[in-house]
This record gives sequence, C-alpha cells and structure tokens, in this order.
Amino acid sequence: MTPIITAFAQSPDRGRGLARDMRVRWALEEVGQPYQVRLVSFSEMKQAAHLALHPFGQIPTYEEGDLCLFETGAIVLHIAERHQGLLPADAKARARAITWIFAALNTVEPVILDLTTAKLLEGDKPWSQERLPLVEERIRTRLGQLSDYLGDADWLEEGFSAGDLMMVSVLLRLRASGLLDEYPNLWAYVARAEERPAYQRAFAAQKAVFTSRQQADGHQP
Amino acid sequence: MTPIITAFAQSPDRGRGLARDMRVRWALEEVGQPYQVRLVSFSEMKQAAHLALHPFGQIPTYEEGDLCLFETGAIVLHIAERHQGLLPADAKARARAITWIFAALNTVEPVILDLTTAKLLEGDKPWSQERLPLVEERIRTRLGQLSDYLGDADWLEEGFSAGDLMMVSVLLRLRASGLLDEYPNLWAYVARAEERPAYQRAFAAQKAVFTSRQQADGHQP
Repeated sequence: MTPIITAFAQSPDRGRGLARDMRVRWALEEVGQPYQVRLVSFSEMKQAAHLALHPFGQIPTYEEGDLCLFETGAIVLHIAERHQGLLPADAKARARAITWIFAALNTVEPVILDLTTAKLLEGDKPWSQERLPLVEERIRTRLGQLSDYLGDADWLEEGFSAGDLMMVSVLLRLRASGLLDEYPNLWAYVARAEERPAYQRAFAAQKAVFTSRQQADGHQP
Repeated sequence: MTPIITAFAQSPDRGRGLARDMRVRWALEEVGQPYQVRLVSFSEMKQAAHLALHPFGQIPTYEEGDLCLFETGAIVLHIAERHQGLLPADAKARARAITWIFAALNTVEPVILDLTTAKLLEGDKPWSQERLPLVEERIRTRLGQLSDYLGDADWLEEGFSAGDLMMVSVLLRLRASGLLDEYPNLWAYVARAEERPAYQRAFAAQKAVFTSRQQADGHQP
C-alpha cells in the first residue's frame, strides 16, 4: 500500500528543504518506499478535513490505509521500524538510534526554532536585536555539546540511522544563520548526510513542487 | 536486571514532580518495573562521567546493564515497548500512541518551555513584561487545538497510554501559570492522570528525595 503524505502547496522556504515533509520524504527514500504527496494550502491546513488528520493543523501527515499519523518523529520511526535501512537490527543499538531521534526533536530543535520565532515572529519588536544574542547562546550550548559528542565520527552511533536523519534535518535549519559554521565537525556531518542519494532524491522531489507546480504527484524512489 | 535512573540531588522545583525523572518513574510504576535511583548534583551533571551517559548534561539517564539511554521520550518508549501497560497491542493503535509521545515533546512542550525561559532566564530583562503575552498566546494556540481534539474523551486514544503519560507530564508544567484552568477538559485530563496509583507512587518517590534526603535509594513498585 502506497502511503500518502501531505506537504505545503506553497512552502515558506520555497523549496530549500526545511519544511518537515522533507524528513519523511528522506526516510521513505532511504528505505525505498514509493509514496504519494497531497499538497495543502495554509487555509486548508486549518480546516476540519485536515485537522481530522493533524490536530495541530500542520504538515506532514502520513496515511497508510486507515492508519493516519502526524509528527515527523512518529512518522519517521514508523517507517524505520517497518523497513530495513534506518535502524540497526541489534535491540540496544536500535534503542540508541531512537534516542537520537528524540534528542534532535526535544533537545536540539526547540532552541533552534526559538531563533526562527525571534526573527520571523518577533523581528519587528523593540527587544528583537537585544534578545537575539541570548537565543543564539542557547543554540551554541547545544551545538557545542553535540559537537563534543560527535567528535570525528561520521554518524552519532555506529552507521547512519533515523537518529542522524532527524538530527541533520534539525541542524539544516541553522545553515542560513551561520551558526553551524562555528562547529566544523557538525558542518561536515550535515554535508555528509546531504550527499546521500536518498537525501538528494527527496530534496529534488520537494523542490519540484515549487518549480513545476505539480499537484498530487507520485514519486518512485 | 534492575534499571538505574538518574535524578536531581536538589530539584529546582523541590519535589513538585516537574523534573523529567518523574516521567520515567511514572512509566516504570505503570509497568511494575522496580528501579534504582542515582542522584546527581548540578556540578556532577556537567562533568565527564555524567556527560558520557548524557551528552547534553541533563537528567534523567537510564542504565540497564550496558545499555544507556537519555531523553525521556526514548526512555519511556523503551520501557513501554518491553513491558505491558503503556502501549496497545494492535500495531496501528500502537503507532498512534507513539505519535502522541512525539506531539507532547515536539509540538506542545517547546511553547510551554518558552514560558519557563521567559520567566526564569529573561524575567529580569526590560522586554519581559511586554513579551510574556506573546509567549502565552502561542501556548493557548496549542492548548486550544489539544482541547478540541480531546473533547470529552478520557484519554487521547482508546485507553491510557505512554502518549497520555507524556502529554500530562508536559501539561503539568503549566499548572502554576493558571493557563491550564482556561481549558476545563485539559484540566480534568491532567487530574484524571494524577489519580492513577502509578502516578502517585512515582510522585511520592521523587518527593521523598527532598523530604528525607535519601541517597541512591531503591524503589519497589
């Protein structure tokens, strides 16, 4: 059964791959699972039909027959558990990889999203310029710890996993800020992930939405 | 094998149950798994021995033989997958319950933690009073959506799950702010969870650390 995911009809980043459907596309490409995409507009995302799939009115959602999931962490974990390629077979190694999915989403992403909030939602406030360095310092604390942990390893654990997929997806949000450049091993880690053929296929697919204005197109990994 | 978790030797909330070890204690109590606790001070949390267990220098950690996990989401999921009582047996219902763990941690908790940041880390800044309503409105958006979804149901899906455990744990951070009072069904949802015997045992155990100054005590659910 081909799963159907939702994505922005008009992405805020115009196809730079930062919208959260990219994470799910990437996971599906890594495991070789074909999928379909249904594009939704911002107004549709807040209407009853979409809220029935996603209570918080966001994208992506993931439909597979009568199963409907939301939250990229849950969707990527679901894909990783049902296919080979994103989680190690050993139970302990698997639990470690899953730990990094949560670390990306609950420890690293929140401080990074604060920067987006500070710039996009509070950029015109009188406190904006004075507050920004505090937000950036909180990001540096987390990046420093992650950088120390990673050291000169290629991936967070033995071999690329769904944990790396999620961590890289979160770190990519920082590229435009220049903060990632302060941590050469993290910069190289992100670049290493971007070189993966599955990443590149997913990136091209999400970008195509904005270049060719395709609607509800299918993708064959 | 009895797992060992870490918790604050001196909790910032003096035993009100908001520290993240509470989530893990609660999960272990729900499934009837005895555990041991190792208390760590704030300075120990930033030292190499603890950073080897938790790269971001936080609590809790979870040690089970040579497996070491961090991130409450990962730990609770690990416990839920290996015992009965926190996830439904049906695969689809299970995926939905796991979705709520991620929703709690990645969609609801970040806006709630912003309030803690605004009050504790930025409470003395010149923008503090003017900015607070913006932070609270972002919380209300999420609470309103969650309240609409929950309606008059007892739990987020059919029967209490690890998803409810995590969502309630996140919502409890709001009690002192009064924001939860604006959503009677969410208030009742949290109260319903607090009535669970497993919650009460976990709450008593974490509180005992601060009343009796026990060190490295064992708890038998």
